[in-house]
Amino acid sequence: MPKLSEAAKQERQERILAGARRCFARFGYEGATVARLEAEIGISRGAIFNWFPSKEALFLELASQENTRLLELIVAEGYEGFVHAVAKEDADWLAVYLEFGRRLRASAELRERWLRLAPPEVQERTRRWIVEAQERGELRADLEPDEIGKFLGVVFDGMVTQRALGFEAPPPDLVVALVRDALGGQSAPRAT
Amino acid sequence: MPKLSEAAKQERQERILAGARRCFARFGYEGATVARLEAEIGISRGAIFNWFPSKEALFLELASQENTRLLELIVAEGYEGFVHAVAKEDADWLAVYLEFGRRLRASAELRERWLRLAPPEVQERTRRWIVEAQERGELRADLEPDEIGKFLGVVFDGMVTQRALGFEAPPPDLVVALVRDALGGQSAPRAT
Repeated sequence: MPKLSEAAKQERQERILAGARRCFARFGYEGATVARLEAEIGISRGAIFNWFPSKEALFLELASQENTRLLELIVAEGYEGFVHAVAKEDADWLAVYLEFGRRLRASAELRERWLRLAPPEVQERTRRWIVEAQERGELRADLEPDEIGKFLGVVFDGMVTQRALGFEAPPPDLVVALVRDALGGQSAPRAT
Repeated sequence: MPKLSEAAKQERQERILAGARRCFARFGYEGATVARLEAEIGISRGAIFNWFPSKEALFLELASQENTRLLELIVAEGYEGFVHAVAKEDADWLAVYLEFGRRLRASAELRERWLRLAPPEVQERTRRWIVEAQERGELRADLEPDEIGKFLGVVFDGMVTQRALGFEAPPPDLVVALVRDALGGQSAPRAT
């Protein structure tokens, strides 16, 4: 195999990941066979698995990128950004998460990895965002940052599940307003 | 087949449903084959399907009973009761819901039926409970009852999903306190 420049390597990896995402969204996690991955990505299995050792590794890399993106969205735009992002996300792709959930359920080791999908510095940045929003009075200060994170997690997972199952999730503006009433500090006026 | 009294009929149906629930929780929805249902229930397939036309009908009847029970819990104890019930529910059984979700996703007709699982009078009683709690000042009056129901649905589905995937959902008391802050009326003091 000829040596690839760094830029070409990255381009190749991105092409593989973009194709894998389309394939997962179209056929589901189990349905995304190696033959279908090859067809959608347009690269042979040998070349695909040269970069990612398995289908699971491909999916986890996609989930890691998405997780990172969503956490960075929280830092940049607050939970409003996150709620709106989930409301706009492709439902077919969200359904892959639920399908993959069977594997999480079956393996404590995989659940541990799942909780650490985003790089530690991104997780730390999100935690710091919560602490600073508490200091600014935008998030209530009488809860631990971790408690705030857990409640947000429940709301996000609820929206993801409803959309993944094909139901209409409530309008994002309603969810944002009620989360603000639950988690907002003194400077966050109650939604009307 | 000998004629059964009404009591015997009901006893038979309850036995079938209880065995089916154990079988679903143990093997998952897809894994609950007819042979396993027979073994767990202790009744032949002919006799089982005499009462319930299909595996799907069996599961929908179980889901309908559970849905009805949870809605009645809301009427009796408020969303506190519901949140605590989900926190205590067998995670193996909750996982069957997520697995069944693939079918919901694939069929708009099934999603419609799913939304009407509980009898209309139970759904109406739940709606009336929301309206009356608004009148008593326990739930905020500046939202439509339907908006309150939808937000509760997101929180419940988030808890169900986290537990079904094997993660630890946040403590129910935390969820209840934050839902109260989001949805409580004037007479609901903010949690501290």
